[in-house]
Amino acid sequence: MQEIPGGITAVRGIEAAGIHCGIKGGGKKDLALVVSEPPGVAAGVFTTNRVKAAPVQTTAHLVKAERVHGIIANSGVANACTGDRGVRDAEQMSDAAARLLGGDKGTILVASTGAIGRYLPMDNILCALPTLVERLSKDGNADAAEAIMTTDTRPKWAAVETKVGRRFARVGGIAKGAGMICPHMATMLAFLATDAHVSSEVLQTALRDAVDRSFNRITVDGDMSTNDMVLCIANGLAGNRLFGSGSPAYASFSAAVAHVCSLLAQMIVRDGEGATKFVEVRVERARTREAADRVARAVANSCLVKTALFGGDPNWGRILAAAGAAGVDVDPRFLTLRLGEVLVVRGGQPVDEARSAEAKEAVSAENVVITLDLGLGKEEAFVWTCDLSYDYVRMNSEYRT
Amino acid sequence: MQEIPGGITAVRGIEAAGIHCGIKGGGKKDLALVVSEPPGVAAGVFTTNRVKAAPVQTTAHLVKAERVHGIIANSGVANACTGDRGVRDAEQMSDAAARLLGGDKGTILVASTGAIGRYLPMDNILCALPTLVERLSKDGNADAAEAIMTTDTRPKWAAVETKVGRRFARVGGIAKGAGMICPHMATMLAFLATDAHVSSEVLQTALRDAVDRSFNRITVDGDMSTNDMVLCIANGLAGNRLFGSGSPAYASFSAAVAHVCSLLAQMIVRDGEGATKFVEVRVERARTREAADRVARAVANSCLVKTALFGGDPNWGRILAAAGAAGVDVDPRFLTLRLGEVLVVRGGQPVDEARSAEAKEAVSAENVVITLDLGLGKEEAFVWTCDLSYDYVRMNSEYRT
Repeated sequence: MQEIPGGITAVRGIEAAGIHCGIKGGGKKDLALVVSEPPGVAAGVFTTNRVKAAPVQTTAHLVKAERVHGIIANSGVANACTGDRGVRDAEQMSDAAARLLGGDKGTILVASTGAIGRYLPMDNILCALPTLVERLSKDGNADAAEAIMTTDTRPKWAAVETKVGRRFARVGGIAKGAGMICPHMATMLAFLATDAHVSSEVLQTALRDAVDRSFNRITVDGDMSTNDMVLCIANGLAGNRLFGSGSPAYASFSAAVAHVCSLLAQMIVRDGEGATKFVEVRVERARTREAADRVARAVANSCLVKTALFGGDPNWGRILAAAGAAGVDVDPRFLTLRLGEVLVVRGGQPVDEARSAEAKEAVSAENVVITLDLGLGKEEAFVWTCDLSYDYVRMNSEYRT
Repeated sequence: MQEIPGGITAVRGIEAAGIHCGIKGGGKKDLALVVSEPPGVAAGVFTTNRVKAAPVQTTAHLVKAERVHGIIANSGVANACTGDRGVRDAEQMSDAAARLLGGDKGTILVASTGAIGRYLPMDNILCALPTLVERLSKDGNADAAEAIMTTDTRPKWAAVETKVGRRFARVGGIAKGAGMICPHMATMLAFLATDAHVSSEVLQTALRDAVDRSFNRITVDGDMSTNDMVLCIANGLAGNRLFGSGSPAYASFSAAVAHVCSLLAQMIVRDGEGATKFVEVRVERARTREAADRVARAVANSCLVKTALFGGDPNWGRILAAAGAAGVDVDPRFLTLRLGEVLVVRGGQPVDEARSAEAKEAVSAENVVITLDLGLGKEEAFVWTCDLSYDYVRMNSEYRT
């Protein structure tokens, strides 16, 4: 597998476009379209929030279609908490795009991100659609990635090429993040495409696995936004033979999907609201994988740990306290903690290096790795997060409804 | 029941003192003693953190003694993650105080709060003990309350008088809080005393109930610090008859304990790190009490909700999103949300008032009440919290290990 430039349009048969239609101020791009020619099968992973936005309800249904032609998405308005009218708007947005592209109703997936509780300005969207379709091109990747941004400071895309059976297949994608620092309630969107020839079942399995190892590593289950979704369209242009989910071709394909998801997920964390650091929390030697996961998330979501990281303070006590409060088996006597390569706690007690310049350096870097060994079993887990800074507070206290 | 001045020493037979012994800098008080003459029975509620500080381990054992003479507590060093030596230090602190007071070994409860992973400066503590004992007086309440402070900006105490059977009994207490804004991992201590004549079993029941309705309303279960504890000593000087936990005397007594705990808990929230607002999150008409509780905590712990409150932004969308992510039954169609008295969401959708000046006023006040009606059942719950400000980030990123 090899990383390649070009994002989602690096995939054969995929064109994209992004324009300003008037939802956001300042002429910022706010409407994106990704189209696969020919249409293909699709897979999707959606927010587990009980308050689901209209486009999530609509697309969770559409993604099961046999022929999916593309994805239309807007930023600026989330179309969440908008009741039946919201669902009708999402359907109309999808149908109008499908008609303009000469396809059947129900072949265009739909997504939204932005302010909750506002109706979509349907006139703006419908008026802009012909221009949007006209702009579709192999060069449209950056425009589409930009048109789904909200508080993101930069567009995000990634692509890889890998061998699937005897053919080379590509997987590419675009994504947007936002307030990812604390329990994650801003929208995360990622759209992927692949030219691999793959059944919708196998595609769904590969995407589900990839999301579990990437986007779900940067958020807390059950704390997703009203609008989160990850979609992937597969158009088969690579010409490989169909494969099952136990085959070597699957291993290769799913690794490519996972790699693109992982790259996009890391970009989202690095561009988190107010983020100054990328932090990996690794938990090792837990009794169960779930326990490892819960401890990693408890540490990664602790505001006290995050603010210490922002201040470059090797505050290992807060890390141990967060781990102890995760609600799973943790025995302080067996705890070992490393900040970067520096051992700071052994047997639940600080070693001399805990107050060293090296420990401080390890948490002052732009990339911080926290490794907590529970000394209880063989399971492990990791979570990616960022620090909690003044800018996070500024961005979220000054953002106006 | 009636609130009275004087804090813990308002209780008959209780004296207190607080002095500087050299743990904290700047001559700040850091060693407190509360003594009951005669000794009495005691009850305690302790952190659920798996990483328990040495004094928690020691006191959880001592609190079962038949005759408890008092409580010694220090601030500045938490004596947590200090292994066997930490436990020996906690025991020595208790024993030395007991000896000086002329009592038996094991009659003085012990508590600590401050930095994790440091050993107690035992020489300082032991040297200061005679002075501390000498200073014991009915006027020592404020000094003792001050000596257990860490990042608290003001000392905290409360007292009430109530009729228990045919006698008037008093309940008084002191407390300290700290970083209470996010998942709660700083130390919370509260020491109560009462002159009611009560068995240790009934006292434990009353204290447990009171804590569930007060201190546990301002924190997340399983997210308590390594050092949290709430203690109560009862010396029987009120002269009432012993009572069972189903009696009218119990109702009156437990209401008094709960009221003191509730006053102290609210003081802790109001003095939370960086707090500018006191926020009550009420969840009504949930299917179960647990569901109501989880939704209330999800809203109260959301960094996005807290930063919006800091900014005085009536961002009801973030409240709904947090509720939907609580992992329990929530149906957006039945949601009703009030900010103060202002109805902003009905049937999961915003009403016109959602963007009114009144809605903004309701969340700009110093006291904010958020009422979320789930429309599903009959159960309810509340949580007290505060907003998330620049000062929280400043205090926690600049605090040095």
